[in-house]
Amino acid sequence: MKQRLTFIKISGLDGNKIMSEVKAYAAPQQSADLEPKTIERREVTENDVAIDILFCGVCHSDIHQVQNDWGGSRYPVVPGHEIVGRVSKVGKNVSKFKEGDLVGVGCMVDSCQTCDTCKKDLEQFCENGATMTYNSEDKHLGGHTFGGYSQKVVVDKEFVLSVPENLDPAAAAPLLCAGITTFSPLNHWGIKKGDKVGVIGLGGLGHMGIKFSHAMGAETVMITTSESKKEDAKRLGADAVLISKEDDAMKKHAGSFDFLLNTIPVGHDVNPYLQLLKVDATMVMVGAIEPLEPMHGGNLIMGRKRIAGSLIGGIKETQEMLDFCGEHDITCDIEMIKMDEINEAFSRVKSNDVKYRFVIDMESLK
Amino acid sequence: MKQRLTFIKISGLDGNKIMSEVKAYAAPQQSADLEPKTIERREVTENDVAIDILFCGVCHSDIHQVQNDWGGSRYPVVPGHEIVGRVSKVGKNVSKFKEGDLVGVGCMVDSCQTCDTCKKDLEQFCENGATMTYNSEDKHLGGHTFGGYSQKVVVDKEFVLSVPENLDPAAAAPLLCAGITTFSPLNHWGIKKGDKVGVIGLGGLGHMGIKFSHAMGAETVMITTSESKKEDAKRLGADAVLISKEDDAMKKHAGSFDFLLNTIPVGHDVNPYLQLLKVDATMVMVGAIEPLEPMHGGNLIMGRKRIAGSLIGGIKETQEMLDFCGEHDITCDIEMIKMDEINEAFSRVKSNDVKYRFVIDMESLK
Repeated sequence: MKQRLTFIKISGLDGNKIMSEVKAYAAPQQSADLEPKTIERREVTENDVAIDILFCGVCHSDIHQVQNDWGGSRYPVVPGHEIVGRVSKVGKNVSKFKEGDLVGVGCMVDSCQTCDTCKKDLEQFCENGATMTYNSEDKHLGGHTFGGYSQKVVVDKEFVLSVPENLDPAAAAPLLCAGITTFSPLNHWGIKKGDKVGVIGLGGLGHMGIKFSHAMGAETVMITTSESKKEDAKRLGADAVLISKEDDAMKKHAGSFDFLLNTIPVGHDVNPYLQLLKVDATMVMVGAIEPLEPMHGGNLIMGRKRIAGSLIGGIKETQEMLDFCGEHDITCDIEMIKMDEINEAFSRVKSNDVKYRFVIDMESLK
Repeated sequence: MKQRLTFIKISGLDGNKIMSEVKAYAAPQQSADLEPKTIERREVTENDVAIDILFCGVCHSDIHQVQNDWGGSRYPVVPGHEIVGRVSKVGKNVSKFKEGDLVGVGCMVDSCQTCDTCKKDLEQFCENGATMTYNSEDKHLGGHTFGGYSQKVVVDKEFVLSVPENLDPAAAAPLLCAGITTFSPLNHWGIKKGDKVGVIGLGGLGHMGIKFSHAMGAETVMITTSESKKEDAKRLGADAVLISKEDDAMKKHAGSFDFLLNTIPVGHDVNPYLQLLKVDATMVMVGAIEPLEPMHGGNLIMGRKRIAGSLIGGIKETQEMLDFCGEHDITCDIEMIKMDEINEAFSRVKSNDVKYRFVIDMESLK
């Protein structure tokens, strides 16, 4: 009842009582298989862009949300925040986009746009809480937001990105999360030619970290436990591969890195990596939203070293990332699937059996 | 025998065969009580400054070294790296100091002075290893260096600091370690008027952190577990006191700090403190050279927060700190002891029973 009241109130404010029904895939309850579901999308308001979704990437967070690993999941969950599509309609205040434009939507579809953090183009840290693409409160329709595992989405113009037409739109989809997650720290910490950058972990995030670091001109070292990933890392742009299990190799590289991008998605021992950093250098964590193994204070104190986190990126920086990809012809390495293959894809993501990102062809949902 | 050979070789290189014998206090073996011992000091070379020690602070590291808590202690250990005294003699290349000058010596007495890190005025991270005031290899006499629990010390001119004459020399002694350890991170991270700074832990380091943060114009909050420290914290310059055990108070301050100076000297849970930081803000660790409890990756990732370490400071910055203290009339709160009270003082430091630093009056060693 409370939710219904919210719905009426908010839809009354917006005056959009017309909605459209679209096909989607949803997890009806915690850890359930995804299955077909019809969802509603609002009619475009004056600030909105309606998008026919062409492709949607499959992010590990999609699985975490379906499983409620982080708490707070609301069901049904329609995952998907690596969306590429074409504009089908725009509201009257929208001048930046027109019908037919190739656009993207990432992890956020709204924020307050007025707080200090939003004004600094860091909407992902909006002080009033950003509206995530799925599993956030839907301020237009009530209930919660539904993501990109669907035919269509309607998004505020400020959260729609231009996707360069020279990029393969399917391979561009994961740029909207995996891309910005790795581009942002490299960009924010000012990685440039002459720097020695280590990318730790070769998965969906790590493979993009290598591409970006290489394109920014840095000497790029792939740091992995797995000898078998050497060749692939070099193909992706790594100048060298450091096997983190080899103590002698780790000692050889000690104190030599200007920056480390740590993409390991689970709790782990960060101490051996901290010892790779130069004086005053930083390791940025983008994967492990989990407790890390005990870190030794001395590994920070000796060398004034730093460990930081980074979460996706703001909208302005996401557009910069897409433009950078257009200039440097960077996309993700993907494996295309049909919508009804999503449950198998989830299983394979969980066992790291994908090089390096699944993308759903939304044509298969029609 | 090996040590003797080293001695002859090195003293031969320097050509200083004349040495003087001075009284000192030393721990003859691991965890033993300190007792009187006569040690040798080299004759001043052309680059040296000889100092008659007036006062020496008692740092918790002195105890760690005597106990060999960090490994690598060499006995006898003559501790002491918070030295204030007057110049008794200078070498012919020394123009910056003259007989009678009030000077200080901190944690280091030498470094290579040629590596990139030394050239950046970060001798504490010298790539070839700085020579610490005690328990480092003595490059002049062989054996290992002896610290400030002694009547006299001879130090390379580049590692001697000017102590402003307006400061109480006894209360200035702990500036050479406790002072620079807390000044350096506040200075390096650019703390200024308008910033909200939290100083975590009220001991030898924390009490100086409050004084410096306050003098730099920041809104200074003492963060402590102990209600009983409130009054003292305010007397030292804190604008407010936050009791970290009070969940409601911690929530009220969440996301509000520009900077946190963490002086807790043992492993602990950093997660509650990380939640106090603003977006992009940093907590710097200066005390815990120990494993920390598991840190949650999400506490860094959400808000692009940072945790860093800091170790004393370079010589240039140590002089800046002393000059800052001269301008702002800042010294340490001390309790003066005689040399033969050192073992009792060690016990009291171990049980945090000192406000806030013991200083040895070297007159008592004569």
